[in-house]
Amino acid sequence: MAVVVSLEERNRPARADLSDLLALTAEDMAAVNTLILARMQSPVALIPQLAGHLIAAGGKRLRPMLTVASARLCGYQGARHHRLAAAVEFIHTATLLHDDVVDESDLRRGLATANAVWGNKPSVLVGDFLFARAFELMVADGSLRVLDILSRASAVITEGEVMQLVTANDVATSEGAYLEVIKSKTAALFAAACRIGAVIADRPRAEEEALDEYGRNLGIVYQLVDDALDYSADQAKLGKTVGDDFKEGKITLPTILAYLRGDEEERAFWRRTLEELHQEPGDLERAIQLMRRHGALEDTILRARHYGAMARDALGVFAEGREKRALVDVVDFCIERGH
Amino acid sequence: MAVVVSLEERNRPARADLSDLLALTAEDMAAVNTLILARMQSPVALIPQLAGHLIAAGGKRLRPMLTVASARLCGYQGARHHRLAAAVEFIHTATLLHDDVVDESDLRRGLATANAVWGNKPSVLVGDFLFARAFELMVADGSLRVLDILSRASAVITEGEVMQLVTANDVATSEGAYLEVIKSKTAALFAAACRIGAVIADRPRAEEEALDEYGRNLGIVYQLVDDALDYSADQAKLGKTVGDDFKEGKITLPTILAYLRGDEEERAFWRRTLEELHQEPGDLERAIQLMRRHGALEDTILRARHYGAMARDALGVFAEGREKRALVDVVDFCIERGH
Repeated sequence: MAVVVSLEERNRPARADLSDLLALTAEDMAAVNTLILARMQSPVALIPQLAGHLIAAGGKRLRPMLTVASARLCGYQGARHHRLAAAVEFIHTATLLHDDVVDESDLRRGLATANAVWGNKPSVLVGDFLFARAFELMVADGSLRVLDILSRASAVITEGEVMQLVTANDVATSEGAYLEVIKSKTAALFAAACRIGAVIADRPRAEEEALDEYGRNLGIVYQLVDDALDYSADQAKLGKTVGDDFKEGKITLPTILAYLRGDEEERAFWRRTLEELHQEPGDLERAIQLMRRHGALEDTILRARHYGAMARDALGVFAEGREKRALVDVVDFCIERGH
Repeated sequence: MAVVVSLEERNRPARADLSDLLALTAEDMAAVNTLILARMQSPVALIPQLAGHLIAAGGKRLRPMLTVASARLCGYQGARHHRLAAAVEFIHTATLLHDDVVDESDLRRGLATANAVWGNKPSVLVGDFLFARAFELMVADGSLRVLDILSRASAVITEGEVMQLVTANDVATSEGAYLEVIKSKTAALFAAACRIGAVIADRPRAEEEALDEYGRNLGIVYQLVDDALDYSADQAKLGKTVGDDFKEGKITLPTILAYLRGDEEERAFWRRTLEELHQEPGDLERAIQLMRRHGALEDTILRARHYGAMARDALGVFAEGREKRALVDVVDFCIERGH
């Protein structure tokens, strides 16, 4: 694939924003959004209502954008990536809807959005609907390889979610176990979203695998930073609430590191707040303070940098160019939003 | 397809049991069960535990048996129907798991089985896992036509479930609206399960459609009778609890007919018990009494007979034989269990 790269382009420093990616994918993403809106329709009005709550609301659409950008990186010229990017977004949205379903025990604490409005059951069913629609889109595309990649990823995502459930509230979860969870629940879809770009462009296996690795490592970065932000985000800037994971007793790398580095009194604090879920006013502030004392948040970001470096290097097999730069920027963006 | 039919076989009266179907499919179903047990495995132990709760427990396995019998009816000789029958059962089990998820409001009333033990969230996630596994099985089979049929059916099922949710507790639901719900939530999978038998046997479109129609009508029969049994079952004999639908305020044909045929005082009773869910001791007995007075249960079975007749006639395009007799028996079995 011959790409003309200006020296200026080649030498520009990495940007920690998505402006290049957004510009690169704007036209394609308009088509993807049209497809998303069309395919979430149903004569059963509650379905587009509830799905629209999440989908039309927007979000970054990062995953479908990765499919589009990966296809472009591979020199793909057709329109198949629109359908498949929509399928990726539907799988992601279905996961979000199901992730927000609350257990009986959770009802005592805060309710998740779609649930709070419509209840558990509609969220589950509309998630199923979107999941089925994702497969309809893939079937319409007609590639068994793509179907294989995304159905496997779907199974792995649910395995990761169940793993997370099983380790939930266990403060002594190892970093390795946590990594397994986020590799499955988050990174598997990032990997698949990128890989299919190479598949439809009919590129050699090495490029497929490079994009898979890029996506997988990027997904880990994304989740690590997300978990750090839950204790450090500038709420106004990111529209993200601090303390959600803490309230739920979710075990993430920041809590794992703080626990491992803490003394007995601190470990008792983590057990009380995250395992027994006995939380008092001021506990979240104490948690953040302990994390800062032990460098748990900084080191979570440091770990993220490691996976970010691997993501960047995975792209080494591709020629320089606008598409590659844009994908590298995603890595930097994901890391930098952690500050 | 030339089939030798003994006169004896041709003239034997329809049997209202599944003995012929069970004998016909025994060997195939052993292979299907092995596949089901193998494919529900996961390194995440909670998944086979929870899935096994429903799957290993058995159940009739009616839907996969229909796939197997339909394939045999079409003279299919290979082994693809094993994988696809397992996929059908996984889709069904995923639906069951998600159907049992309770809304906040439901927590006050009885909890469904898998939920009661593990909670909502694991049931949702394991349902997702089985759904993804179903698609993996279909992808491994490799037929885009089969994938198309079953992904469409999956979307339709969820549409039906959402429709049911929307009409729930509305005693004035019309028979037509109710039929739409059960056509989607139940009959769509029966139709797809049968149709794919013809697809893999590479039979002409007319036979595919005949099996689709057979399955669809059989599915309606199945659901109608199920809804009648909820007010009339011999609990000891069927292992089915009477009154579950009533407790949940579910609107089914027996309640629709009783409401339409009732006077103002009776309608007030239905509104209080099913819409407002203010139920008192003796209310279930009163409901059953009103249904009996208005022939609501008998007429639900009568309606079932109508769809049963259509199911039987749909098989008219196929030659007589053991397979066809077994499929006709299923219709009779489904109707007769209503008494």
